[in-house]
Amino acid sequence: MTTHPVLIAGAWRAARATGTFTAFNPALGEPLPGEFPISDWADCDAALDAATAAAAHLRTVPPETRALFLEAFARRIEARKDELVETAHAETGLPKAPRLAEVELPRTTAQLRQGAAAVRDGSWALPTIDTKLNIRSLLAPIGPVLVFGPNNFPFAFNSVAGGDFVAAIAAGNPVIAKANTSHPGTTRLLAEEAMAAVGEVGLPPATVQLLYRTSHKDGERLVSDPRTGATGYTGSRAAGLTLKAAADAAGKPIYLELSAVNPVVILPGALAERSAALVDEFVASSLMGTGQFCTNPSLVLLVASYATEQFVTAVKARFEAAAPTPLLSSGVAKALAESVETLQSAGARIVTGGTSVSGAGCRFSNTLLRATAAEFLKQPGKLQTEAFGNAALFVVAVDEKELAEAMKHLEGSLTGGFYSDTRGADDALYVRLEPLLRPRVGRLLNDKMPTGVAVTAAMNHGGPYPSTGHPGFTAVGIPASLRRFAMLQCFDQVRPDRLPPLLRDEPPHDRVARLVDGEWRRGPVRAA
Amino acid sequence: MTTHPVLIAGAWRAARATGTFTAFNPALGEPLPGEFPISDWADCDAALDAATAAAAHLRTVPPETRALFLEAFARRIEARKDELVETAHAETGLPKAPRLAEVELPRTTAQLRQGAAAVRDGSWALPTIDTKLNIRSLLAPIGPVLVFGPNNFPFAFNSVAGGDFVAAIAAGNPVIAKANTSHPGTTRLLAEEAMAAVGEVGLPPATVQLLYRTSHKDGERLVSDPRTGATGYTGSRAAGLTLKAAADAAGKPIYLELSAVNPVVILPGALAERSAALVDEFVASSLMGTGQFCTNPSLVLLVASYATEQFVTAVKARFEAAAPTPLLSSGVAKALAESVETLQSAGARIVTGGTSVSGAGCRFSNTLLRATAAEFLKQPGKLQTEAFGNAALFVVAVDEKELAEAMKHLEGSLTGGFYSDTRGADDALYVRLEPLLRPRVGRLLNDKMPTGVAVTAAMNHGGPYPSTGHPGFTAVGIPASLRRFAMLQCFDQVRPDRLPPLLRDEPPHDRVARLVDGEWRRGPVRAA
Repeated sequence: MTTHPVLIAGAWRAARATGTFTAFNPALGEPLPGEFPISDWADCDAALDAATAAAAHLRTVPPETRALFLEAFARRIEARKDELVETAHAETGLPKAPRLAEVELPRTTAQLRQGAAAVRDGSWALPTIDTKLNIRSLLAPIGPVLVFGPNNFPFAFNSVAGGDFVAAIAAGNPVIAKANTSHPGTTRLLAEEAMAAVGEVGLPPATVQLLYRTSHKDGERLVSDPRTGATGYTGSRAAGLTLKAAADAAGKPIYLELSAVNPVVILPGALAERSAALVDEFVASSLMGTGQFCTNPSLVLLVASYATEQFVTAVKARFEAAAPTPLLSSGVAKALAESVETLQSAGARIVTGGTSVSGAGCRFSNTLLRATAAEFLKQPGKLQTEAFGNAALFVVAVDEKELAEAMKHLEGSLTGGFYSDTRGADDALYVRLEPLLRPRVGRLLNDKMPTGVAVTAAMNHGGPYPSTGHPGFTAVGIPASLRRFAMLQCFDQVRPDRLPPLLRDEPPHDRVARLVDGEWRRGPVRAA
Repeated sequence: MTTHPVLIAGAWRAARATGTFTAFNPALGEPLPGEFPISDWADCDAALDAATAAAAHLRTVPPETRALFLEAFARRIEARKDELVETAHAETGLPKAPRLAEVELPRTTAQLRQGAAAVRDGSWALPTIDTKLNIRSLLAPIGPVLVFGPNNFPFAFNSVAGGDFVAAIAAGNPVIAKANTSHPGTTRLLAEEAMAAVGEVGLPPATVQLLYRTSHKDGERLVSDPRTGATGYTGSRAAGLTLKAAADAAGKPIYLELSAVNPVVILPGALAERSAALVDEFVASSLMGTGQFCTNPSLVLLVASYATEQFVTAVKARFEAAAPTPLLSSGVAKALAESVETLQSAGARIVTGGTSVSGAGCRFSNTLLRATAAEFLKQPGKLQTEAFGNAALFVVAVDEKELAEAMKHLEGSLTGGFYSDTRGADDALYVRLEPLLRPRVGRLLNDKMPTGVAVTAAMNHGGPYPSTGHPGFTAVGIPASLRRFAMLQCFDQVRPDRLPPLLRDEPPHDRVARLVDGEWRRGPVRAA
């Protein structure tokens, strides 16, 4: 069996490897063919050198070329769709349709095309011109970006095609991708198409590089290396915080998306009004993708009542009726079982599930736990342990006051939501509770489950620590996500022909919006 | 002698102190009357509790009230101008006029008024609306902000009146100010006026709080406390990085402005064209404020030539002719002497100066050092030691190639500049060298010294590490500086009457620019 090559400095070449690993079919519980290398530092070092040169070269490439690259890559992904979907399905167990072929792959190509549009437009860089003083500024490329993709979105968050990749390239940076080790084959195919698109449009060859795996120590060296501009990481909290510590100590920006429990507060009036619909919505969102979404609603807060007991009973029945779908890997299955145990050790009781499912593949029974708010208040941290997968915890408060107390102990989450009576019965309570939830979550929802993350300008896929490392940034949503991979560059009295095109009196095109003397405007600047 | 009270939760009250300290007149070398407390953790804890309540309260206060506060505070500073200038002069040795009375104080009140205008306008928050999906987002207050002000701007960067204070309040957050211990009396006067303005307009009393000093350990606890939203720090690298480590470990944003060497590259054509003018410009900028500006040009890069030797000789003569002005404190004088020794130990030679000046007050002779680029290349880190004060290092390269090599070893700086022939003789060289400097500095200048930091929208008073902690943010310039103290809040299907006014279809006023369906627009949103 041959070991797959890595992509460094524009060439697919044998890795300087310390070992190899194989991918695994989690639905069948079987290893997949092919060996992937674990690179040693020599590979990392070579990739960083090549990326440094590519970053300098990219500064001289017209934005249009980057836009063409993103579009060419999208087309190539579409052309190789069947093979990509087969491979991703084999490596993740996620359904080919609708999930991979009809939802995630189109979302991925749409992101690439939105990135292209943002590059052409240029407004993402917040070009700012003060004519009186002739001081001008914009957001400019930050340098080589490392992308660590997660296990749960083999396309849309892939380190060689997903949101961080698009944002980094659109902002003008080369990417060194670290594959998620649960879907290296999918990542290899994407990197092949990315590299072909690089060649097609004539970007610097090291604009896209790929390593499959490194030691943890080399991961920490990568994010803190002087040549690195910034890092985008999506994945587990433990690994993310280790990388953050290394990057922080070196003064290197690192953007983390570490998942969350995403609290959903169901107010009494909503349950009285439309309990059956809420059961449908919750169960669909909770079990979607075997619960393996960063925005999975894994903590539901309720007030004790007969209606609440009916809700719990109905959800239990639906969880039991639904056949458990495969988890992404044996590692996910193990972590899920451990998290459920942690929740139990903190006082949560199993309503249903809580056991591994025997037979082929990695499956865990659909699991519902419950705890009282009093128990939650005793160990709020432990009862916010993320059980990544098809598990949820209901916390039931004796009254609205205790519900409010519990909410004061919510950790930072990507999302949080309220369901309330549509006719107004919960309005006064909403007004009291909203200030407790709003500052603790990146995205606040009303009467909607959090699992859909639309790729749109107003999206925030971010939130307060520990759901991310900084509450001011989003990993999804263009143009805002581009700003993570940028440095602010000011030009003070710089001669006109030396300015970046976006800051010249005459802009490169009339679509770009610029903040000129305090007003957002289009078109040329009148000479001061 | 009584000890001054601290300002906590709206009241001036006796500190829970572990000791006291006094201010010092650096020009006379004498202690000033009055004792200031070193607060223990009980004071910090009380301030954090009060700030947490104030932050929640501030979310319900109309923006107009914050704008009125900033304006009332500016008026009050102007009304107490004479006393403020006298006190700041006594505590810092900075000239009363023009510096304190005619430059720094008007700049400070201008910043407050610009902050008020930004609050009223609201565009700083980048309100974004996607009508089709009904997803909306904006930047919202991040929570209590700690401000640590520097020693060198007793008004404009004061923790209770300066840029970080304005940005934090304008973004909707309460401030806990930690006075710079070299001008506690000035800070006390400013806090009295801030508190009076808080009362005048009816903001929550704990919107502004003041501690004079804490232990280093309590400083680290403050920046990492769960109640803290973010920190703004301007000051020395060592103290700043210690605070950064504590804040980073707790996932708390901290914005640092740690000063820099601010390289100035003088190209041969500029020297041939206008050497005498360059001597004037450099000497004025270098010695301004006894060199105690974060943007002081303390590293000049030159190419060896007869003209360069003439330039060095002329600067030497001017440095010797100028009487050394007082330094801000004995601590600054000691650090300056140590830095000059460090530079010498790395191969730099004294051209003039390098000694303490005897007599009253803290003075150091105007100091010029020089080193070859070859020496610089041997110890680039050590030869970029910041000598905060009236000292500069000239690095002379044998040719343009060696100049370029030296530039590849420049650390991140707030600013960097080129002087070049105005008729084009240096243009080809500029094109080769600019890419080496541009990514290493926050603000790039042409034919201008860096010491003027205009408070204007396009300003960047920031730069790559280690000049700051993150290259995407600026400490000066409104509206960008406000965005540091904000979290991104998204509203997904949130009912119209529950949205913040800036995100409703009908905006609170027609001046606010919003990114609606991908375009910056004013006025109401057509219902989707």
